[in-house]
Amino acid sequence: MNQKVTPLSGFPELLPEYRAVEQRVVDLLRATFELHGFAGIETRAVEPLDRLQSQGETSKEVYVLRRLQADESASDSGLGLHFDLTVPFARYVLENAGRLEFPFRRYQVQKAWRGERPQEGRFREFTQADIDVVGRDVLPFHHDIEVAQVMVEALGRLDFLPPMTLQVNNRKLIEGYYLGLGIDNPLLAMQAIDHLDKMSRADVKVLLTATGLGGMSDEVAERCLDFATITSTDTSFVEEVRALGVQHDLLEEGLVELARLVQSLQSLVSDRVRVVADLSIARGLGYYTGTVFETRIEGLESLGSICSGGRYDTLATDGSTTYPGVGISLGVSRLLVPLISRGLVQPGPKVPSRVLVALVDEESRPDSDAVATSLRRRGIATEVAATAQKFGKQIRYAERRGIPFVWFPPSGDDGGHQVKDIRSGEQVPADPTSWTPPEETTQ
Amino acid sequence: MNQKVTPLSGFPELLPEYRAVEQRVVDLLRATFELHGFAGIETRAVEPLDRLQSQGETSKEVYVLRRLQADESASDSGLGLHFDLTVPFARYVLENAGRLEFPFRRYQVQKAWRGERPQEGRFREFTQADIDVVGRDVLPFHHDIEVAQVMVEALGRLDFLPPMTLQVNNRKLIEGYYLGLGIDNPLLAMQAIDHLDKMSRADVKVLLTATGLGGMSDEVAERCLDFATITSTDTSFVEEVRALGVQHDLLEEGLVELARLVQSLQSLVSDRVRVVADLSIARGLGYYTGTVFETRIEGLESLGSICSGGRYDTLATDGSTTYPGVGISLGVSRLLVPLISRGLVQPGPKVPSRVLVALVDEESRPDSDAVATSLRRRGIATEVAATAQKFGKQIRYAERRGIPFVWFPPSGDDGGHQVKDIRSGEQVPADPTSWTPPEETTQ
Repeated sequence: MNQKVTPLSGFPELLPEYRAVEQRVVDLLRATFELHGFAGIETRAVEPLDRLQSQGETSKEVYVLRRLQADESASDSGLGLHFDLTVPFARYVLENAGRLEFPFRRYQVQKAWRGERPQEGRFREFTQADIDVVGRDVLPFHHDIEVAQVMVEALGRLDFLPPMTLQVNNRKLIEGYYLGLGIDNPLLAMQAIDHLDKMSRADVKVLLTATGLGGMSDEVAERCLDFATITSTDTSFVEEVRALGVQHDLLEEGLVELARLVQSLQSLVSDRVRVVADLSIARGLGYYTGTVFETRIEGLESLGSICSGGRYDTLATDGSTTYPGVGISLGVSRLLVPLISRGLVQPGPKVPSRVLVALVDEESRPDSDAVATSLRRRGIATEVAATAQKFGKQIRYAERRGIPFVWFPPSGDDGGHQVKDIRSGEQVPADPTSWTPPEETTQ
Repeated sequence: MNQKVTPLSGFPELLPEYRAVEQRVVDLLRATFELHGFAGIETRAVEPLDRLQSQGETSKEVYVLRRLQADESASDSGLGLHFDLTVPFARYVLENAGRLEFPFRRYQVQKAWRGERPQEGRFREFTQADIDVVGRDVLPFHHDIEVAQVMVEALGRLDFLPPMTLQVNNRKLIEGYYLGLGIDNPLLAMQAIDHLDKMSRADVKVLLTATGLGGMSDEVAERCLDFATITSTDTSFVEEVRALGVQHDLLEEGLVELARLVQSLQSLVSDRVRVVADLSIARGLGYYTGTVFETRIEGLESLGSICSGGRYDTLATDGSTTYPGVGISLGVSRLLVPLISRGLVQPGPKVPSRVLVALVDEESRPDSDAVATSLRRRGIATEVAATAQKFGKQIRYAERRGIPFVWFPPSGDDGGHQVKDIRSGEQVPADPTSWTPPEETTQ
């Protein structure tokens, strides 16, 4: 295989020391999800194109599959790679409805693919970590609270990453407010307001009032903007909304839900994860019907939301039964890759080994292997030196890999086994059948 | 999303209780690999088609990607999904050679795709778990021993699966024997001998002797078959080969290597994993140059090898530097999916929860949530009942999910917290701040 190799734009790959960080993120997420009773599943990478295309605006970004030597009638023609984990999950629920227990809590950590133009935080291949709760016919609101709590707890465990802010809102609240204001097409207003994170208030006002766009009166546009610029870290947004004097049943319903959500998250707020009711958050796509979530990395808000989701009253339907759901999806690549490229995350170890067993000479390799076996029996990740170089070179071999301990088996006249902490330089006698790495106080 | 859903042939998906088994397999593999100092990486799903097609016979099975609305000049045209993890790993090594430490030990658990006709044990999408050690310019033979030991240890941990047999051989031994016999084209003979697991000795002899096929004399064919039918669980194969009276330097080299390998695996042999030197094993593909591995599930030999690999003196080359490697690849889907469909593996739990906290009524949900939080703080996976049904129904809710314990918070007049083991029916008072599930002795 003698060929030129070049990275592919939009298909990020990590060196082992950064893959270790990604793996740690995934492990912590998974541990949190399972602690809350979420079952892990994986779905196939492909879906029929008609299923992918029914999702509207993303369809143009789908990667279609074709076998190099396929005929048209092949059973794998008309397939594309999934662009998120929600579409395949909805299909999985329908396909297995008779064999699942509802409400069904699941998590799913998998890759997804989109053929869009690569840019920072946007990839053609990326890893997502999703949690959803799906019910049959009904799904009480407390599950909205549940998924938010689980994700806030999970994000809180990622204490080696910058702080994050979960922004919450409720589509009933937004739609109710707009309907109460007499706006016919709340979706259009929502899409304009959605630009508030990138455009000035004045520019968004242009979108709301211009003929052919929002077409609102100046006053109505101002009242939209007054509403959408409300934020609060507690339930004080409720009074602020009421002070705007708009009345609608849907607005009331949304206010109650959002206040319950914000209240229920207070005990989980920390320096690591803040929670803000932000009434500008709407999520562009049409299918959310209540709670909506977005998440920003503090100081890197321009990267957009790295963890988003919400309530959809119809996650899936087979015509007779409807499956409502609520979920939230963390963009693992979208979070990590920009942090790595900006040097904002410490690399992990290049190898999992805690100990390198040195080699006195090639003939005594079985002795070094026996030490390694003994250490591994107690769960200590260990490798044996590749070649019997001088000990100084073997120590540098460990240093380059970030292995903290080098073990020296007895050689010739000298006494017994010794182990060296190459960070402190301390070297002590040790017994391979009982030694364990001391608590890491040095670094 | 109201559409007909049908499973796709060749793209297996698992229910949560079987995904739990697959996850357990992957976790045990990973723990073993890391214990031996193997670093985890992931590579992108796609490779340039010319890289995939340089692998000869599998090229016809490649899935090619195309964006629904792409033009020909797009940077993601000419890409296909990888059909194994070796081709992308070789490319990753070349691409990152300057940033990796050699010998580089890596494991990789990912999906791969092949457009072949689905049949039992052959899928269009499947999960592989690979370990490889790759050197720069040189890679001593002890790494062949290392990867075999690591995989045997890993397979040994899968004690909920049927026993397996690792078959080992050495291409130098085979080629040396054939060359010593005066056979010009050892590869042709090897490919004929490869059919010994499915065809009778007499039929394979036809392949070896027929004009236009092997074209050997009857006597030479018999000597090939005498050689290829040698098997031994220890190093006694060495004497058997020597007794055949063929001499060649390569044969000697292969005998020494294979004997060392078999000897070094003796201490790892168990009821779970047997090791056999089987001189019929050659691995069809051309690039192996020494040790070769295959693995059969005992009683399901017809499924073929579920874990294969070997030594390749040129895993990758950039023209000036050559990277030799030795590796072994476990077909996770290929192992598990047939076992699941035959009912030969016990399903895992449908949910990770160990405890269901019952709900007295919807108003007291915060009390049940507080119990759950308290249990989770000690790492006990817990969920709260979805609705405040009668306790009998909540117990059946737990039963259906395989949750062993139901927790009853105080309700009304009755005293304190109680927890019920629904398998034994035993119910005892319990403190949410200190209770932990008793050791599982009942089931």
